[in-house]
Amino acid sequence: MTKARIEAFSDGVIAVAITLLALDLHIPDPAKPGTLTHRLGEQWPNYAAYLVSFLTIGIIWINHHAMLRRLVSVDHAILVLNLVLLLTIGVLPFSTALMAEYLKAAHGENLAAVIYGGSFLAMSLAFFAMQQHMLVAKQHLLHEHLTPDLRRVVLRRNATGLLPYAVATLAGILTPYITLAICALVAVFYALPGTTSDVPKQTGTPQEESDRA
Amino acid sequence: MTKARIEAFSDGVIAVAITLLALDLHIPDPAKPGTLTHRLGEQWPNYAAYLVSFLTIGIIWINHHAMLRRLVSVDHAILVLNLVLLLTIGVLPFSTALMAEYLKAAHGENLAAVIYGGSFLAMSLAFFAMQQHMLVAKQHLLHEHLTPDLRRVVLRRNATGLLPYAVATLAGILTPYITLAICALVAVFYALPGTTSDVPKQTGTPQEESDRA
Amino acid sequence: MTKARIEAFSDGVIAVAITLLALDLHIPDPAKPGTLTHRLGEQWPNYAAYLVSFLTIGIIWINHHAMLRRLVSVDHAILVLNLVLLLTIGVLPFSTALMAEYLKAAHGENLAAVIYGGSFLAMSLAFFAMQQHMLVAKQHLLHEHLTPDLRRVVLRRNATGLLPYAVATLAGILTPYITLAICALVAVFYALPGTTSDVPKQTGTPQEESDRA
Amino acid sequence: MTKARIEAFSDGVIAVAITLLALDLHIPDPAKPGTLTHRLGEQWPNYAAYLVSFLTIGIIWINHHAMLRRLVSVDHAILVLNLVLLLTIGVLPFSTALMAEYLKAAHGENLAAVIYGGSFLAMSLAFFAMQQHMLVAKQHLLHEHLTPDLRRVVLRRNATGLLPYAVATLAGILTPYITLAICALVAVFYALPGTTSDVPKQTGTPQEESDRA
Repeated sequence: MTKARIEAFSDGVIAVAITLLALDLHIPDPAKPGTLTHRLGEQWPNYAAYLVSFLTIGIIWINHHAMLRRLVSVDHAILVLNLVLLLTIGVLPFSTALMAEYLKAAHGENLAAVIYGGSFLAMSLAFFAMQQHMLVAKQHLLHEHLTPDLRRVVLRRNATGLLPYAVATLAGILTPYITLAICALVAVFYALPGTTSDVPKQTGTPQEESDRA
Repeated sequence: MTKARIEAFSDGVIAVAITLLALDLHIPDPAKPGTLTHRLGEQWPNYAAYLVSFLTIGIIWINHHAMLRRLVSVDHAILVLNLVLLLTIGVLPFSTALMAEYLKAAHGENLAAVIYGGSFLAMSLAFFAMQQHMLVAKQHLLHEHLTPDLRRVVLRRNATGLLPYAVATLAGILTPYITLAICALVAVFYALPGTTSDVPKQTGTPQEESDRA
Repeated sequence: MTKARIEAFSDGVIAVAITLLALDLHIPDPAKPGTLTHRLGEQWPNYAAYLVSFLTIGIIWINHHAMLRRLVSVDHAILVLNLVLLLTIGVLPFSTALMAEYLKAAHGENLAAVIYGGSFLAMSLAFFAMQQHMLVAKQHLLHEHLTPDLRRVVLRRNATGLLPYAVATLAGILTPYITLAICALVAVFYALPGTTSDVPKQTGTPQEESDRA
Repeated sequence: MTKARIEAFSDGVIAVAITLLALDLHIPDPAKPGTLTHRLGEQWPNYAAYLVSFLTIGIIWINHHAMLRRLVSVDHAILVLNLVLLLTIGVLPFSTALMAEYLKAAHGENLAAVIYGGSFLAMSLAFFAMQQHMLVAKQHLLHEHLTPDLRRVVLRRNATGLLPYAVATLAGILTPYITLAICALVAVFYALPGTTSDVPKQTGTPQEESDRA
């Protein structure tokens, strides 16, 4: 299996999932009562959940590429782990729509928030499992300049990234708003300059170099 | 026709089909009676069918790549056979949704299961037909290291893979649960390490080597 | 603009359009009366229209690649003509669903058939316009081995391909069944070995050769 | 991050968004009163909005490629800016459907038009921000032949392109028809030969040359 095709397929799935999110932005029925301003305003949970999920999927895409960049070749186990990761990304349009629909509902909002936070946690866990498998079990498939120290730094950063989603998931038991807020903060944090969860800044340069070939 | 573009198009169709599966995970209407826990629980056939179909499409993607990897170039017949294969993959969101909707219904569950198992069988048959056409009729388009023995092993493995889906399809006449269970087992089996339906383990190495160029 | 990216984008649009067709295969509501067998049987226009459109889009994809293969580079006019072609492909899920919904309806079936045939005609016209623009106006962007004779053969074959769709469109005024039958025959004809609408058989070899690089 | 994968992912998102637009072309219910001719005719705002959005997304895709072509490599900031641009493209199916649904409605048509024009303005602003960031802050990532003069010309053209969308957005306060007309004119203008918003004609040649490698 060439690296190129696992990238192409993953890009495809992630691109479709991120764009399908928009299907949950509903058009209010003009025949029903209420001004459009009011009715679009009521849908703010949809916009908020959309924004957070869009950014989060976008960032996982960036990290996914950084992860695959370290590989020279792929094997069956990596393909299957990647498939599990794509599965967790593929359900995000569902968990996002669930969160949007129930955030202000009279009941079910806690379960929806736990599922929403939990789906991000599942995605991060799948990412971490794939990263660890590559860096620990499949070192012969990696580019040579990845020293044990560098590998440890990458894994530690990945593991740290699991924490906020675990907290966000648990917080859903109290109130869905904290779940949404934490997930939003994580997305914004990783979008800021110099904060990829994956490539440590001090070691980014040699890898960037190897990309330009 | 270059191999690159048939791969790109197939990756696109498979990526869209696998991601569209999530459109059948419905959000319960908050205005209707019943707790969210209960109503999501009721939807377990949707989650089960989603999981099985997602994994199955993912594995057919892996096998598809292994199949195309043997080719040096493609011709019109291979393109059309590939189109038929993509057609069988493209209907999986429909047959999956049908299975999910009727698994617990008062009637129609047997037909739904036969269609569900049958759509996987059709996909496997299309895959086998394409594989056989390439390995038997179009040997001049293949990489040179594919000996007649190796070709026979690949085809026999492919043919064996048809059996469980034939059984799963027939079992739908009795009960849809056996159909779903067999399809799930097939998906898990091929996801396990060292069990691709396509590339025999003992001969994988030379092909892996040729990929790294 | 590199050729690679116009191919990638076109592949993406065509792959999404061909897969979205399945969204019009509806799941009968289990709560409503009628056996599943009967109700799926009633939907045969959906399956027929789905099959015809799937094959037709697949074949236009094959021809699209054959067309672009002749190019060395692309310019703004080719990009815009390609965009118009993708537009005509992008509406096929709509015209297919319209045909499926109205084929057996008490009224509107003729208009639906004219729109269905007309959307294939529009697609063929857009294809022909792009082909002609490339072969006549932009010869400096083509591979050198395309002699004037070969260019004329390709264009004549393309123009001939417009005829059946024109007839199918007009036939919709009489009955939608002839429209569907003609479109089906065209799709099957081009799927048969050695009948691409685009690359004349006798001249295929040198082009195939240039692909293998 | 290689340029190839940011292109592949962007192509994917843009291809899905442009094709999802067709989901808002509704099939009239045959069981409801009214001839099909009449009822399709009533939907003209959907077709108009579809056409304008399809062309606009297609043109932003052309410009996107022209923008990325100047890059040798990408960094985290460019990836995030690109993600914001894709976000503005991803919401276009929503704002297009909103415009189509409310253009002829008794109320809400002005807000819908402001959102429609505003979503194109947001897309142009995101494009401009990414362009400026690349050309001003990240000159070390660019191809060498981009002189300061050329960079200034490109940015000035980009900034000029913001004006019509700002006017279209404001015009929505008066009437949605002017908004739609301006957006249509912009799309047609950029589709005409020799009017890309991005690459000045007089300097196009050296860049075209560099593409053919």
